[in-house]
Amino acid sequence: MAHAEVEYRRGEYRKSAARREQILDAAFAVFSESGYTASSVNEIARRVGLSQTGVLHHFAGGKTALLQAVLDRRDQLAEDILADRHGIDFLRALSEITRTQLDKRGMIQAYRMLSTEAVNPDHPAHAHFHDRQRRVLHGLERAFREAMDDGDAPLDLDPHAAALSCMAMTEGLEVLWLNGFTVDMVGDSRRHLQQFLTTGL
Amino acid sequence: MAHAEVEYRRGEYRKSAARREQILDAAFAVFSESGYTASSVNEIARRVGLSQTGVLHHFAGGKTALLQAVLDRRDQLAEDILADRHGIDFLRALSEITRTQLDKRGMIQAYRMLSTEAVNPDHPAHAHFHDRQRRVLHGLERAFREAMDDGDAPLDLDPHAAALSCMAMTEGLEVLWLNGFTVDMVGDSRRHLQQFLTTGL
Repeated sequence: MAHAEVEYRRGEYRKSAARREQILDAAFAVFSESGYTASSVNEIARRVGLSQTGVLHHFAGGKTALLQAVLDRRDQLAEDILADRHGIDFLRALSEITRTQLDKRGMIQAYRMLSTEAVNPDHPAHAHFHDRQRRVLHGLERAFREAMDDGDAPLDLDPHAAALSCMAMTEGLEVLWLNGFTVDMVGDSRRHLQQFLTTGL
Repeated sequence: MAHAEVEYRRGEYRKSAARREQILDAAFAVFSESGYTASSVNEIARRVGLSQTGVLHHFAGGKTALLQAVLDRRDQLAEDILADRHGIDFLRALSEITRTQLDKRGMIQAYRMLSTEAVNPDHPAHAHFHDRQRRVLHGLERAFREAMDDGDAPLDLDPHAAALSCMAMTEGLEVLWLNGFTVDMVGDSRRHLQQFLTTGL
């Protein structure tokens, strides 16, 4: 390919990537407002000034592909924070993730709507949320086991029970916080984690 | 009024009450499947073989009135169980309420959808869920204070913090249970309550 054509294609790729991001922002906003079931590709297209066909050019799988891309984009942030962290250091990183969410109430509400809809096994995001929640549980469990190995947790700890308990507390605090209760999501989650450890978080 | 007319009216009243219950069952089923926002009075009417006007004859306020009636009907059960119970006896009753929910997964999911939608202050059920959650918190707090007075809880307990913590744990366990995790909703909630008490639950 000639240099000019490569440059042209790069420019097109950047434009297309920017457009995809725009569409995902709109999809997320619409899903947040109405829930996934009640949302339409048409409304998402309208928000970015495209036709429905225009949106389907970027997301051929339609509404479910948009949902999947919105969810994947969110997970990336948490995975970047947790990458290569182990034991008590992994448990500390969880507070960092919680902290990044404090100014994203609308987003948290939207994911909670989606994950509640997705409890139904025939929901297109069912597998996503199912797998994600199991990954979180296994990550926590592994971190507790590593903390035991490192002398940061008592040797008689049940890492599975501790992981489930911490997950339940974090979910519950998020529900109360969303509903306007005065809870300290970062501090209260950390205090709950701390009771299973012998080293300070 | 003549005796026959009184009898006739009683019969009409019973029929109307039974019809209202039927409509509420259908409304609840439709809200459960699609969430409140995406549901229509039309679909609810179709399920009970009525026209939309037929449903509006029983619930003049339309979809929001149906939602309110569905929510009120649910609260009655919990309030009947908790009536006139105090201190540790109130805290024991909470396990009974949790136990009544174990065979109602669809219903629990539906209320969680509705309460998540209702986080928005302009949602018609916002005040209902807001008030209900505060009543639960205050009931718990009062029960912990009574338990302290009765010698069933340590005198240095913070009843507000204990109530919030138990509410968060119960909400979180429900979320995990809904998502198919193996949690013991009754036992795990009770164990969490127990740590704030000196008398066995």
